[in-house]
Amino acid sequence: MTDVDVVVVGAGVAGLTTARQLAAEGVEVAVLEARERVGGRTEHGPVPGHDGVVVELGGQWIGPSQTRISGLVAELGLTTFDHHDDGELLIELDGRRTRMPSHRGAVPRLNPLVLADLAQAQLRLERLARRVPLDAPWTAARAGARDARTFASWIAANVHTRGARSYLRVATEALFAADPRELSLLHVLFYLHSGGGLASMTSFDDGAQQQRIVGGAARIAEALATELGDRVQRGRAVRSIRQQRDGDGRHLVEVAADRGGTVTARRVVVTLPPALAGRLRYDPPLPPGRDQLTQRLPAGSVIKLHAVYPEPFWRADGLTGTIISDRSPVGLVVDNSPPAAVPGILTGFVEGRAARLLSRRSSEDRRRLFVAALVGHLGSEAATPSAYLERDWSAEEHTRGCYGAHFPTGVWTSLGPELRAPVGAIHWAGAETAEVGNGYLEGAARSGDRAAAEVLAALR
Amino acid sequence: MTDVDVVVVGAGVAGLTTARQLAAEGVEVAVLEARERVGGRTEHGPVPGHDGVVVELGGQWIGPSQTRISGLVAELGLTTFDHHDDGELLIELDGRRTRMPSHRGAVPRLNPLVLADLAQAQLRLERLARRVPLDAPWTAARAGARDARTFASWIAANVHTRGARSYLRVATEALFAADPRELSLLHVLFYLHSGGGLASMTSFDDGAQQQRIVGGAARIAEALATELGDRVQRGRAVRSIRQQRDGDGRHLVEVAADRGGTVTARRVVVTLPPALAGRLRYDPPLPPGRDQLTQRLPAGSVIKLHAVYPEPFWRADGLTGTIISDRSPVGLVVDNSPPAAVPGILTGFVEGRAARLLSRRSSEDRRRLFVAALVGHLGSEAATPSAYLERDWSAEEHTRGCYGAHFPTGVWTSLGPELRAPVGAIHWAGAETAEVGNGYLEGAARSGDRAAAEVLAALR
Repeated sequence: MTDVDVVVVGAGVAGLTTARQLAAEGVEVAVLEARERVGGRTEHGPVPGHDGVVVELGGQWIGPSQTRISGLVAELGLTTFDHHDDGELLIELDGRRTRMPSHRGAVPRLNPLVLADLAQAQLRLERLARRVPLDAPWTAARAGARDARTFASWIAANVHTRGARSYLRVATEALFAADPRELSLLHVLFYLHSGGGLASMTSFDDGAQQQRIVGGAARIAEALATELGDRVQRGRAVRSIRQQRDGDGRHLVEVAADRGGTVTARRVVVTLPPALAGRLRYDPPLPPGRDQLTQRLPAGSVIKLHAVYPEPFWRADGLTGTIISDRSPVGLVVDNSPPAAVPGILTGFVEGRAARLLSRRSSEDRRRLFVAALVGHLGSEAATPSAYLERDWSAEEHTRGCYGAHFPTGVWTSLGPELRAPVGAIHWAGAETAEVGNGYLEGAARSGDRAAAEVLAALR
Repeated sequence: MTDVDVVVVGAGVAGLTTARQLAAEGVEVAVLEARERVGGRTEHGPVPGHDGVVVELGGQWIGPSQTRISGLVAELGLTTFDHHDDGELLIELDGRRTRMPSHRGAVPRLNPLVLADLAQAQLRLERLARRVPLDAPWTAARAGARDARTFASWIAANVHTRGARSYLRVATEALFAADPRELSLLHVLFYLHSGGGLASMTSFDDGAQQQRIVGGAARIAEALATELGDRVQRGRAVRSIRQQRDGDGRHLVEVAADRGGTVTARRVVVTLPPALAGRLRYDPPLPPGRDQLTQRLPAGSVIKLHAVYPEPFWRADGLTGTIISDRSPVGLVVDNSPPAAVPGILTGFVEGRAARLLSRRSSEDRRRLFVAALVGHLGSEAATPSAYLERDWSAEEHTRGCYGAHFPTGVWTSLGPELRAPVGAIHWAGAETAEVGNGYLEGAARSGDRAAAEVLAALR
């Protein structure tokens, strides 16, 4: 006899979805969560002086093509609202600052050569991306050659104007929290295919950032955890997983965690980001391929900065609040106000190399830099936010980087099959393991479905 | 008061050198080693049926330009002998098999176009490599561009014949246990500079593989451990490192390890490979940059295979025993017989992607494949080895890959300064942290000198 049938490691959306699917089938499950909160890479930050208002410290958007997470949000009785996208956005690119309509399909007011260059680059990328099989990117046509090049090399060879190159760098940072030089071209193509294409992934309007959850995206995990009740155990960081066979030859897994010792089960689902999954202690040790994979899937680097104002003053100027810049370390700013638009919140993203530089500085330095950037774009009204919040995700012991892991060159084609392959009674989930919506809340939920199905099949 | 002044994590050459330097200055030191043996990535394998004869399961060579390790070997009273390099080697390249003289400077009997192509490629590489500052590769000229490309991309653009490309792939695998597609060009240039250049690094004669240690390279660590006596504690895998300040504001480090609990000290030197160093638990957690670095420095993949014969029969045919092949998964074979040449031992190296494929197969499969490759080159005398030994280094829980870690694209230029930067009272050593001889025994010993000097300065 074991304590439960299945232990799930991690109470983010992937882990809680796994547990919910299993519980619905009558499987006894325990979810062990390291933190005192659930939600993983989604998290609320309370706004000082505004009771009940939260900022989104982590993942926050869903889009209409993300059917699994949209369905889950509806099932859980949560409500959504559209990301504020009325008006024009500000774009600073290649030394020029312009305003442009924000809605999808709008033609930006950029140099026509840059626009044409961007269009051909995007067309090529989308065409290549569609040919990468989501379940096995290593089998794509020319997979070897594409996995041997960085995305930076591809840009250098295929994009000809400085403005278009700059835009693609900023877009890459916004999607991966990593620099084009860190990414395998094959991985970028896989990821674009998995996320529904560059146009959708970089859009609010009809894109992956169309909707927000009233009360914050962490409500998804909170609602799931409420359903699961005391199956979810907080403050229980898992340290080791031991597998053996019992007298009947059945799998017996012992999961050791802080506070309360070991939980025994027949199966375990590890939903941690790959690098953190690789840091658990396994007995017997993981096979070489799986271990080498976890050495090679680093998390991106992102710091989210939030400036709170009495109201979203930029809206009166016809601005959406979105600011894209290839000069500032804060490459992207968005209006992150709550539905009632009180207070007004601007959220900045510092990604990739910029995040690594700024994470060495003080919070006060980052605040000053962010506010100065906002003043530069929006004027002196931005100078005195009533509050400032931030989250450096690579500093979080139980996350160690966001938005998710990426594949450097050469990894998909030599170790790709290890990504989801169970190791004995250990199954793997998490947004990084998803075929569709990889890296997004969508992928997290889908990975939970897939892992739960694997476990159910194995238990029967 | 603390148990000791300094804890050293890991009893490989780096850790033992650190401890030796510290002990010589009267510093109290404890070396905590996870395994029951010392030596880390050097290890003896006893040869069945030949008492006292060992094969080199891990790192084994030193060269005349490696002055620090050569000096240490002499100080420790160990003796060396030349790697067997008399005769001709066999090379299978681009569909052709030839014999060629082995000594350095000999002109291989290859297609003259391939030879010319290789010569120009090597010249270019050496010229670029010399300009990479060993202490700060991220400051090299065009560092950003070179760190944005893989070595595979460089080969595709600068090497024109199939034979030369093939040769460079095999050489890369032999040096890094990784494929050119996994490596940043900047890292390859750094590594070539650090190791003394491609010609020396790929040579036996007057190169990095000129000499072996009588009794095996693990004798170095064994001799150091003997000197250090009960300062070296085996079977004590370190699990966590906690830093705080004592009442006087001095650093106080608590190192928790298997068997025997916690050891307290003023400073700790972690000599594990970066990926494993990242898997320890730190309190407080490591700062973002250091943690992100350890997510990005994967170890190579190599399996060493050993076939034992009554005598080195290939020598009678005028062969050195060296076989280089771009077709076999065993890219390199060498004569690894002991000084007395009884028994004869051939050692094969399976590296990079081939290692990942073969590590999923059985030991018997690997033996069969290796013997078949040897028979193909050396004839039926190779068909019935009296013994077969192997070591898959990525399966080793306390190593998880050899020869060492490599830098994928984009890592040196964004996180390079984190490689050696102490974190509070934690210092970093190991072959991967060396400026000179990075990845070699030479670099391991030098990193120990550097870490010991850092600690001495801090303690004074």
